Amino acid sequence: MISESDILGSFQHLVENNNNDFVIVGSGDDAAVIKSQKKDLVHSLDISKEGTHFPDNSSAEDIAYRSIAVALSDLAAMGAYPSFITVGLTSNKTDIKWYKDFTRGIEIITNEYDIRLVGGDITYGDLNVCVNVFGYCYKNPILRSNAKPNDLIYISGTLGKGRKGLTDWQNNKKSEYISDFFRPKARFDIAEYISNFASSCIDVSDGLIKDLSSICKLSKVGAIIKFEDIPITNDIKDLSYGDDYELCFTCGKEYEDILNAQGLKPIGKIVEGLNLELLKENKKVKFTESGWDSFE
Amino acid sequence: MISESDILGSFQHLVENNNNDFVIVGSGDDAAVIKSQKKDLVHSLDISKEGTHFPDNSSAEDIAYRSIAVALSDLAAMGAYPSFITVGLTSNKTDIKWYKDFTRGIEIITNEYDIRLVGGDITYGDLNVCVNVFGYCYKNPILRSNAKPNDLIYISGTLGKGRKGLTDWQNNKKSEYISDFFRPKARFDIAEYISNFASSCIDVSDGLIKDLSSICKLSKVGAIIKFEDIPITNDIKDLSYGDDYELCFTCGKEYEDILNAQGLKPIGKIVEGLNLELLKENKKVKFTESGWDSFE
Repeated sequence: MISESDILGSFQHLVENNNNDFVIVGSGDDAAVIKSQKKDLVHSLDISKEGTHFPDNSSAEDIAYRSIAVALSDLAAMGAYPSFITVGLTSNKTDIKWYKDFTRGIEIITNEYDIRLVGGDITYGDLNVCVNVFGYCYKNPILRSNAKPNDLIYISGTLGKGRKGLTDWQNNKKSEYISDFFRPKARFDIAEYISNFASSCIDVSDGLIKDLSSICKLSKVGAIIKFEDIPITNDIKDLSYGDDYELCFTCGKEYEDILNAQGLKPIGKIVEGLNLELLKENKKVKFTESGWDSFE
Repeated sequence: MISESDILGSFQHLVENNNNDFVIVGSGDDAAVIKSQKKDLVHSLDISKEGTHFPDNSSAEDIAYRSIAVALSDLAAMGAYPSFITVGLTSNKTDIKWYKDFTRGIEIITNEYDIRLVGGDITYGDLNVCVNVFGYCYKNPILRSNAKPNDLIYISGTLGKGRKGLTDWQNNKKSEYISDFFRPKARFDIAEYISNFASSCIDVSDGLIKDLSSICKLSKVGAIIKFEDIPITNDIKDLSYGDDYELCFTCGKEYEDILNAQGLKPIGKIVEGLNLELLKENKKVKFTESGWDSFE
């Protein structure tokens, strides 16, 4: 049986690597002290659980990476860049290698996004990763509640890659999509780019249908999207599956040309009313938030 | 079976109660935006698990209160006052009343300390509460690593009350101590008072012996404490039991008179060397971090 101090030892180098200009008091005391950036702080929290948010037998490195990536994605959706994170780990693993792999996953993603792990706690129990992420806005927060009728709707990339990756992994099939599921990318590049003009934004964690519905509900508007204009990987279910972490955003028509130059084409537009309509071959597709029933 | 939105509904009023001067963007978006205080941020994280950190069958209100209180205590030990918290809840309870009671526990403690809940997440699984607490220093951080030889050692209150409360609760005995276990108080009053002169500080969460040993280890000093000078509730085991959340701090001898006027008397002093010595009737008591073996 490994001891708590063995486990904590495998995390030590991560907190010690902190830049002293950034973390004034790091690991080993009652609390960490983080240097003030004199800017409003943007925060999100995500719990990832084995069997719910990632499959049993996922590698420890992937679990750490993915749990943090999906939390970071919420900052991107807010038009914010990431600065520091905390990780609360509950684990029943008894192999020190598992913890070393887990910390390597943290190290890979914190290096990739140039962010700091400023605090953590470990306790024994069913595998559960509670990630808090903190950052600052590129400009102003991009809310879910500010889409306006006649705004265009965009998606930052292709839907369904995470879904295909998970299926390929479950079928022991080698595939470039597997990393789309286990190592999703938070779209800070797009978040920064659209910060100057997007009217609303959300990350597609629960599926485009549900997430765009959330923008509609909070903005008190409707939306019409065209199936043929939405980049997908598999089939129409890519629109409701989630696990994509692309950004869905809206903006005024005057930005269509500059977004087109970036390779981004609108997938639909915001309208008056409160309904989200999906058109396929110019016919309405009926759906619920979690899928659809039939074609009209 | 209750739905996720039922559960989230029971939390809604807590995040909506946020003062808008403090939380610029609250619940319902991808992330929260917290107004900058232009001061260094102090952070700590604590996971509380059923069966480990609180007994099975604890009330939901107590679980919420206690999980947050023990995390807040780390801020007090750092010489910081609390400002906002986040709660990541994993729970397998299927009764909406449980969640209402849990949120009432959050409400009671956030009102008591005038702090805000700025974010949260809920997932299904074994009961596990991951609390992140944030605050700002009264003055400078009070570290564990700054005790000096000849400093006096103090404890902010009586040890063993939590231990007695838990035992009484387990024996179905009515007792004023039960709230000491389930509703411990973070000693911000003392933290503020000693911020101007304490050389080191820790909260007694793991027991005085272990926690004072941590100050010794990090400050590279030794300590001698006298059993007869330590306020206890039960017996000598109160020194190693923990769950007290009083502050153990050190300061120069020149502060003895003003602390005496506050009713605080030294329990020992910091010395050269690296050993913690406990004297009882002027004889050394042998102990390990978790207890003791025999009297010499």
